[in-house]
Amino acid sequence: MGGPRHLVSIDDLSLTEIQGLFEHASRFSENLHSSADSCRGLISASVFYEASTRTRLSFESAMLRLGGGVVTAADMGLSSAAKGESLADTVRIISAYADILVLRHPSEGAARLAAGYSEVPVINAGDGSHEHPTQTLCDLYTLWIEKGRLEGLDVVLSGDLRYSRTIHSFVYALARFGANLVCVPHAGLELPDYVVKRLREEYGAEPQAADASRLGDLARASDAMYITPTKPHQLSLYTQASRGARRVDHVDAIYMTRPQTERFASEDSANDYVHLDTMMMSGEALAEAVVMHPLPRRDEIAPEFDQDPRSIYFKQAARGVPIRMAILAMLLGRIDISSSSVTRESLHPAWWGTNPCPNLGCVSHTEVRQAPPMFRVISRFPLRGVCGYCSRELIIGIVGCRGRVELYSPTSTEARRIEPDDLLLFRDEEEALALGLGGEPTPTDG
Amino acid sequence: MGGPRHLVSIDDLSLTEIQGLFEHASRFSENLHSSADSCRGLISASVFYEASTRTRLSFESAMLRLGGGVVTAADMGLSSAAKGESLADTVRIISAYADILVLRHPSEGAARLAAGYSEVPVINAGDGSHEHPTQTLCDLYTLWIEKGRLEGLDVVLSGDLRYSRTIHSFVYALARFGANLVCVPHAGLELPDYVVKRLREEYGAEPQAADASRLGDLARASDAMYITPTKPHQLSLYTQASRGARRVDHVDAIYMTRPQTERFASEDSANDYVHLDTMMMSGEALAEAVVMHPLPRRDEIAPEFDQDPRSIYFKQAARGVPIRMAILAMLLGRIDISSSSVTRESLHPAWWGTNPCPNLGCVSHTEVRQAPPMFRVISRFPLRGVCGYCSRELIIGIVGCRGRVELYSPTSTEARRIEPDDLLLFRDEEEALALGLGGEPTPTDG
Amino acid sequence: MGGPRHLVSIDDLSLTEIQGLFEHASRFSENLHSSADSCRGLISASVFYEASTRTRLSFESAMLRLGGGVVTAADMGLSSAAKGESLADTVRIISAYADILVLRHPSEGAARLAAGYSEVPVINAGDGSHEHPTQTLCDLYTLWIEKGRLEGLDVVLSGDLRYSRTIHSFVYALARFGANLVCVPHAGLELPDYVVKRLREEYGAEPQAADASRLGDLARASDAMYITPTKPHQLSLYTQASRGARRVDHVDAIYMTRPQTERFASEDSANDYVHLDTMMMSGEALAEAVVMHPLPRRDEIAPEFDQDPRSIYFKQAARGVPIRMAILAMLLGRIDISSSSVTRESLHPAWWGTNPCPNLGCVSHTEVRQAPPMFRVISRFPLRGVCGYCSRELIIGIVGCRGRVELYSPTSTEARRIEPDDLLLFRDEEEALALGLGGEPTPTDG
Repeated sequence: MGGPRHLVSIDDLSLTEIQGLFEHASRFSENLHSSADSCRGLISASVFYEASTRTRLSFESAMLRLGGGVVTAADMGLSSAAKGESLADTVRIISAYADILVLRHPSEGAARLAAGYSEVPVINAGDGSHEHPTQTLCDLYTLWIEKGRLEGLDVVLSGDLRYSRTIHSFVYALARFGANLVCVPHAGLELPDYVVKRLREEYGAEPQAADASRLGDLARASDAMYITPTKPHQLSLYTQASRGARRVDHVDAIYMTRPQTERFASEDSANDYVHLDTMMMSGEALAEAVVMHPLPRRDEIAPEFDQDPRSIYFKQAARGVPIRMAILAMLLGRIDISSSSVTRESLHPAWWGTNPCPNLGCVSHTEVRQAPPMFRVISRFPLRGVCGYCSRELIIGIVGCRGRVELYSPTSTEARRIEPDDLLLFRDEEEALALGLGGEPTPTDG
Repeated sequence: MGGPRHLVSIDDLSLTEIQGLFEHASRFSENLHSSADSCRGLISASVFYEASTRTRLSFESAMLRLGGGVVTAADMGLSSAAKGESLADTVRIISAYADILVLRHPSEGAARLAAGYSEVPVINAGDGSHEHPTQTLCDLYTLWIEKGRLEGLDVVLSGDLRYSRTIHSFVYALARFGANLVCVPHAGLELPDYVVKRLREEYGAEPQAADASRLGDLARASDAMYITPTKPHQLSLYTQASRGARRVDHVDAIYMTRPQTERFASEDSANDYVHLDTMMMSGEALAEAVVMHPLPRRDEIAPEFDQDPRSIYFKQAARGVPIRMAILAMLLGRIDISSSSVTRESLHPAWWGTNPCPNLGCVSHTEVRQAPPMFRVISRFPLRGVCGYCSRELIIGIVGCRGRVELYSPTSTEARRIEPDDLLLFRDEEEALALGLGGEPTPTDG
Repeated sequence: MGGPRHLVSIDDLSLTEIQGLFEHASRFSENLHSSADSCRGLISASVFYEASTRTRLSFESAMLRLGGGVVTAADMGLSSAAKGESLADTVRIISAYADILVLRHPSEGAARLAAGYSEVPVINAGDGSHEHPTQTLCDLYTLWIEKGRLEGLDVVLSGDLRYSRTIHSFVYALARFGANLVCVPHAGLELPDYVVKRLREEYGAEPQAADASRLGDLARASDAMYITPTKPHQLSLYTQASRGARRVDHVDAIYMTRPQTERFASEDSANDYVHLDTMMMSGEALAEAVVMHPLPRRDEIAPEFDQDPRSIYFKQAARGVPIRMAILAMLLGRIDISSSSVTRESLHPAWWGTNPCPNLGCVSHTEVRQAPPMFRVISRFPLRGVCGYCSRELIIGIVGCRGRVELYSPTSTEARRIEPDDLLLFRDEEEALALGLGGEPTPTDG
């Protein structure tokens, strides 16, 4: 494209780049006041379709610390959108008023759509329950600052692991960096299957039963699950990983989440939700475990624990400023993070038929005019793909090829040979037939 | 007055000044980042009684680009106003907090009222359906950049020409600069009579039937009307103007508008509203026609046309920044636009009786305590005047003179001789009689 | 503590410091544009749980004039709070994004709570009907500028003296500076008893009947009450103060207030509310009386009086900027106001039992988790105390002492001897008994 570089997903950044961001953030944090010329004369636009005061202020503070200026649309949902303007048009216009856009939007994949239309870099500040990469970077940065590394850390995830967007992004990133995960979910709010599946398939993390009894109350009444990356350089750290349940005898960090009651289904309940306090944290295995929380908290962490030096959730929030300074400065070209950039699978148009994305909250469904369905291949054999906006796995019942009438099973070798740009994806044969494909297959030379 | 200079109406600016603004805007746009010291230390206050994120951000971006600071009241309608404060008081207070005010208000004439009370320059960022001069300047500037001139351009206006404030301001300004207008309205949404009347009377533009058949679909089912300015220097450009319908064989620009459905009367409909796409734009007469739109658009321009180089509506929006930089810098005294300033007819108090402004949305009706009726004479014989706030023509049934009891017809020579400051305006004789005027006329020496 | 210095209450400032602020404000006001480097690189966060556009813009303008930056959360009440976050947590997080917090909150005492949790200085921009110290400083500063002093001034307070927070803070401060107060309240909206009591007890101001007949209409139908401070240095100014009613023959200032109808009880009425106009101000005693108003006004001051040089309410509003510049610069350590700081009675935990604060709007009731009851002793004998947050006097029916079971009357000598940190405060004996105290008293060695 040659266009500006965006931060839509944490996966847009290579591990080396993330490391570079940490180092710059660390430098910024030494004196937040000393970088007031880095972005002098540049403007950041906060474009928030949902209120999120903390995220917004953190970005705006970062931009001001860099010497830049800020324009703010804190309630976009009530303004242009009310006049029926598409997100694409709004983005195109506002991107002419600023040097970088910080976008918060309720539709999953909105930031990817915006990046496609913006003249300037777009930072995803949360798109529905999809991604919030700067929160993830802030969490990783905090852990890196506290522990000096990410690889090989033992991190406990506790509470609502099901509905928390923060948790999902965080576990993928931890797995990517080779940390180990112990899940101690609230009953009924376990990590969703598709997350576990992705952890296994993309990051090689292997779920195992964990003996978390020494974690004390934290694990009470929970199905603790231990996830160890199986990549070689990580296996060397965990030689016993393959021998059944691991005993968790040292925890580096506990990541707490509030119950996302606003997303609860009718059968979900926050009764007996985990309540972390000094007593619970008295076990030996937790002696050096820092406690993190994306905030806001409700009752899941007792206020008196705030005095404990292991409570670092307010530091974690504060670190949102230097890490966002690093992100802004990088995307604005004011700091150089030399790196082999990450190369992700390309996006392809999802031609014809119904939009194959099963996620109705995806921007490809809510902004149909300017968000044509796109997909990214995640496996060639069997053929599997995810939505190019919201990353949800597509339902591919049957496939075709541009210029032919035959239909193929996604698990066929024929399907494997079709160039992604020529692929026609269908949920089922009926959909394909309705478009005039299929019927008697002509023999293929495959 | 000696007070600060304001931008309430496009008519506050002479053609030379507008030209000067264009030149400065053009200079600013060459490098938006290079003017960061022009307004260093100065503050602009955005005072918005209606949400208008795009307009507000565009102004704020312009002020930041000039190195100034911004304070924002994006929802004034919910704040002070809720405590029952008059607009005049609010303006007086906030004008002490800033070096320039940018005001958006739902009442027509609000900016004129504000200018009367502010200690600092006021910029009208939209007052009801009255004026939005910086939008008009942005539109003119865009045309000037694209075509190199305004005089003699053939501009098609399409869609809702009735309820669009933008269109009205734009046509007056185009007429003033000597452009030609072809109206292709949606059925029922024609240019209002009072606009056509003003075009004819003040700008000498003569409506004529236009042969717009070569405009293709654009003109389908529409009453195309061609308006040519008749001032000598323009006539020289259009020697055939007086010989009946002109054939429109070359269009320089098409200005599209969305249907302002929120202002529709019950009989109005947007069915079969114009839909501009690549097909429609294929006619030879439109080969060099740039397509403009004040945005937001709905369906009146197909998204696929965005790829066409003639689609300049996003550029148009982007140019809001440099033109507003020029306006801010001029009013703040940071750039010098040497010019013979425009001299407009003075405002006079509309003494006695009922407020003669027929526009109930006018600020003289909504802010009665601090917006005493004022008028501006637009014709001495017969006597005609417009409201000093909202510019709507007054209903003058009969007039009196301060210090006398006689009443006169506005078409009388007696009326012509009364000094405007002494004029008493009445809707009808009854109103005058109720105030003790009229009855048996004493002979006048006129 | 060693933490940052806050401005929660006007009582946090010594008279010398207030004088210092006036002098700096005066210097700033000479050229509002010349201090643009004082706070370069620093950030102020406006955290408003209630809309108050004027107060907010005034602070933000002040910060920009000092060269600082601003981040704004103008509708906090709708954001984090909606997610169930405590004020303490929000403050802790946002204080990491800025160098100073400006807080507006509906709960009384909220700013004191915030100060306890913030990493950076907190400025109280209004906490319910408790305090709004920068408004008070602005009022005092205006009077000081106009009259050259505060001591010995005769100030008339008119209108709603009951529900106006502004009035209460202002009278305490005037009394502290030794000004004389003439109260001319609207019937039924007199100064509350607790305010008069505090004026008498803390500032030695003695209420007396005033002969206010020469104030003209202002005093009509009102119970004028004259309050003269009795402290020695003030008495010397008013030698006749002890000889019955004083005649008010010269007024230095009239402070008007709007009826706070939104707080009216059902029996309150604003009928025949005072209406100040040029006629009313024609008395000789008022010839040099400046007229002040915290604004917004409704009908209590006629707009035509705005032309009178004695109307200084808009100047008063404008002076909010330089005085806030001085406050910001002082708390940010950018100007040095050398002074013996005020030493206030310490805060003590209100142990055990029910929260003794009778004010249900107090933050100790609304933020129970993180605002443990605190008190400040205002009299040792008899023992009296006020809430450490909202300053409301506590109901102390009976007291105990940590480590003992006996109960004592607050008027007893035993109570006098208990260290404040050991005091257990109870509304009544029943409450104490329920906690296992009291019963048969053991003899004390007192």
